[in-house]
Amino acid sequence: MSLQLLSTSKCYNGEVKRYSHQSKCNNCEMKFHVYLPATISKNAVPVLWFLSGITCTDENFITKSCALQFASREGIMLVCPDTSPRGAGIEGEQADWTLGLGAGFYVDATNEPWSNNYNMYTYITSELYDLVSTSFNIIKDKQSIFGHSMGGHGALISAFKNPSKYRSVSAFAPICNPVTFGENALTHYLGGDKTKWDVYNASVLAKSYQGPQLDILVDQGTADDFLYKLYPDQLIDACKSNSANINLTFNHREGYPHNYWFIQTFIEDHIVFHSKHLN
Amino acid sequence: MSLQLLSTSKCYNGEVKRYSHQSKCNNCEMKFHVYLPATISKNAVPVLWFLSGITCTDENFITKSCALQFASREGIMLVCPDTSPRGAGIEGEQADWTLGLGAGFYVDATNEPWSNNYNMYTYITSELYDLVSTSFNIIKDKQSIFGHSMGGHGALISAFKNPSKYRSVSAFAPICNPVTFGENALTHYLGGDKTKWDVYNASVLAKSYQGPQLDILVDQGTADDFLYKLYPDQLIDACKSNSANINLTFNHREGYPHNYWFIQTFIEDHIVFHSKHLN
Repeated sequence: MSLQLLSTSKCYNGEVKRYSHQSKCNNCEMKFHVYLPATISKNAVPVLWFLSGITCTDENFITKSCALQFASREGIMLVCPDTSPRGAGIEGEQADWTLGLGAGFYVDATNEPWSNNYNMYTYITSELYDLVSTSFNIIKDKQSIFGHSMGGHGALISAFKNPSKYRSVSAFAPICNPVTFGENALTHYLGGDKTKWDVYNASVLAKSYQGPQLDILVDQGTADDFLYKLYPDQLIDACKSNSANINLTFNHREGYPHNYWFIQTFIEDHIVFHSKHLN
Repeated sequence: MSLQLLSTSKCYNGEVKRYSHQSKCNNCEMKFHVYLPATISKNAVPVLWFLSGITCTDENFITKSCALQFASREGIMLVCPDTSPRGAGIEGEQADWTLGLGAGFYVDATNEPWSNNYNMYTYITSELYDLVSTSFNIIKDKQSIFGHSMGGHGALISAFKNPSKYRSVSAFAPICNPVTFGENALTHYLGGDKTKWDVYNASVLAKSYQGPQLDILVDQGTADDFLYKLYPDQLIDACKSNSANINLTFNHREGYPHNYWFIQTFIEDHIVFHSKHLN
């Protein structure tokens, strides 16, 4: 579980670092980026996790989001994991952008041959969570999570399935029900019986969530070409039906598409939202 | 000279766009990115040019600099050109990262076979300048220029050689004398007689600059691996010797390297600096 430092650079008085490590649950080497605010050298800091979307690696968010200035200002550590195992060598792993490399969907695969490597749910919520908690000077019980598209789905399900683990959750254009966008991947990872997918379905999980009041922030562009595959209304309805436990703020952003220009535009809002729950 | 729109996206209420066009002076297709602040739809806006460094394309700065939020706030159009012609098909053009593709050095080549295509000085200061001035709703006499590394060299020489054309100039880790970093490229483009390079040497040009008082801002990281090839002291000395015409602010930034994390950290300072001269 030892970390290997791949690169480091000063940025906003803190540091951007990239690490690799051998993952037990994914049975391969995994890479991730972090941003460490300058304050971490003196005091433990809260942690904010960002889960990226399909085709992304651990590099996209850290490079394109413009988040670091706000993480620096708020004194929050950012963790940016990869979106799938790399190098498992499974046949068909690279054939389609919606399955395999870059499309782990943050679930634990139950079907062969994927189940030996594609265990991104356990990786994010347990293995890497524990590794970060023991490797950096952080406040272990002050962690929040957010993500984009497939990563928004990952952030939502991670929060719903682990009450108290994350203080807040937010998403940019999240997949709120993976039945369409995730059909190819989840059929391979979990099998064709879609009722078995419900344990990773944010719109299903939101209905039954019980735990500390969970504040959720979602931004969704109205010019998003993938909107028909995201099912935001299902999440909105589910959260309304469970308003005793969930407080959802859902913003429709006029004219914004699905890309990182959209994320960049609203990133400060999200980091300030999480900072209120972490600081 | 007609522009072909390659992509567009809303960002910070304005728009990021990428164009291609046929360049007369480079005799090939060229691409560039712009950021148009929302205000351009109602009123003409000032323009800020960014010239990137070796190996970069028109994409690096727009993607990694986090500049758009400040351009939006200040109501300034950004123009991000490419760093060399693409597709001239010259032998050896791709063999070395310091020559050819990605390393145009913002000079007009005089030597065969480069002189037919590698005319980036004329491209930046005349051809694309005129194209931008006639294609967008801008205030033609309110333009400034900045850049990074090779692009810092390009910005400085463009300002020194064209008094009044640019209201201000700034640079991140600029090549202040191209004699070392540019040795490979300039020997090919301009020939082996280094006295002929002086017309593109910022430290030479600074001494003889005459024109409206020119304000220059430079940030230079102290942990820059390329520092020994940049010759910042030559620029500092030259500007001091011509303090009647040039006002240089030179910041040594402790622990910062040569990369985009460094640019990102200080980008707001640079855009605010130019905004004071443009607004």
